[in-house]
Amino acid sequence: MADLKQLMDNEVMMAFATYATIILGKMMLMSTVTALKRLNNKVFANPEDCAAFAKGENAKKFLRTDDNVERVRRAHLNDIENIIPFLGIGLLYSLSGPDLSTALMHFRLFVGARIYHTIAYLTPLPQPNRGLSYFIGYGVTWSMAYRLIKSKLYL
Amino acid sequence: MADLKQLMDNEVMMAFATYATIILGKMMLMSTVTALKRLNNKVFANPEDCAAFAKGENAKKFLRTDDNVERVRRAHLNDIENIIPFLGIGLLYSLSGPDLSTALMHFRLFVGARIYHTIAYLTPLPQPNRGLSYFIGYGVTWSMAYRLIKSKLYL
Amino acid sequence: MADLKQLMDNEVMMAFATYATIILGKMMLMSTVTALKRLNNKVFANPEDCAAFAKGENAKKFLRTDDNVERVRRAHLNDIENIIPFLGIGLLYSLSGPDLSTALMHFRLFVGARIYHTIAYLTPLPQPNRGLSYFIGYGVTWSMAYRLIKSKLYL
Repeated sequence: MADLKQLMDNEVMMAFATYATIILGKMMLMSTVTALKRLNNKVFANPEDCAAFAKGENAKKFLRTDDNVERVRRAHLNDIENIIPFLGIGLLYSLSGPDLSTALMHFRLFVGARIYHTIAYLTPLPQPNRGLSYFIGYGVTWSMAYRLIKSKLYL
Repeated sequence: MADLKQLMDNEVMMAFATYATIILGKMMLMSTVTALKRLNNKVFANPEDCAAFAKGENAKKFLRTDDNVERVRRAHLNDIENIIPFLGIGLLYSLSGPDLSTALMHFRLFVGARIYHTIAYLTPLPQPNRGLSYFIGYGVTWSMAYRLIKSKLYL
Repeated sequence: MADLKQLMDNEVMMAFATYATIILGKMMLMSTVTALKRLNNKVFANPEDCAAFAKGENAKKFLRTDDNVERVRRAHLNDIENIIPFLGIGLLYSLSGPDLSTALMHFRLFVGARIYHTIAYLTPLPQPNRGLSYFIGYGVTWSMAYRLIKSKLYL
């Protein structure tokens, strides 16, 4: 038990826990945005979901795809593709004993870039707003991966 | 080595390991269900996958989408969207030293709700079966995130 | 701090960190391959992305799906579906104190199988190349899950 407490008393681990929770919370909100867009635009993927709006054959007109919904789903999938590597590499990087200030810079840049990415995707802002925020997050993850492999390589 | 053993002798970590493995195992089964539905309904996404059934132009009729397969894929994607935050937040929450009974309640509720979600999605059961099980899993993850941020905030 | 250092001085954890980083790096490259295929084939999902190629109504012809792009996206999604369980189960398995040689065999087989899976998907190689590499990765993850649950079951 004592060791477990010390693990989370480490400042890098606390910072990682905080920023990982923030960005996962943001990602979870994408589900809510998708659900609201589906309800507002009456666009559903499953017949049982439109039972409240219409019965039988009449309900089929709500089973369609709509770009307002698809845009949120693309942003959500892009989050998934980028937040998984951040979580896996970021956790192992945090355990590898980096400087607190370097680690904080990585976490803050990643979380800021991904929040801006979502804003740029959903508004939508003209390119290269989304592209640049994507590359910053991508670069931050590669930078942590490089640091981790350099210090802990074991093949 | 001694410290590593103590980490996994912590009861909350053992419980998290058990429930995380159960829900990831359930998620992995979705791939198998998708594959079986594809074979049973002869619905494929890649030309090389239907080579066993027909050759050349004749094979193209198997390259289609079918709602029996798409329903499993939607359930699988919903798992991915919800199990990633549970894994990331749940691991960090487990390391932050919660009460064993509170942690167990969170893990059991989440795993139960997600298993019920899959049953409701694949049967399909009428709404709000799927919706409610979704919200229980979602709420459990937010509750762990709140507890984690409250005890370990480091910005 | 001392305990944190010891955690990452454990050889199994170092090996897991190395192989997890390699396979996450490979997964991240899928985003780049998708982006290159989109640019080369002029196939986009968002109107703002083709603004550099054409304006207004003219740009709509680039908003389409193309199987060269969709194939990479299917390979990427298959990675996500299989690498998430590997990361979650693999981390907890590494913490549960397995033999170094057994752990290394699991990690190497998984990473090798997933790299071969990507090659088989993108070339594409005829089946059962992709199917077999998929099953090897899937089996390795189940094997780690079995070992973990057997040694750390706590319901």
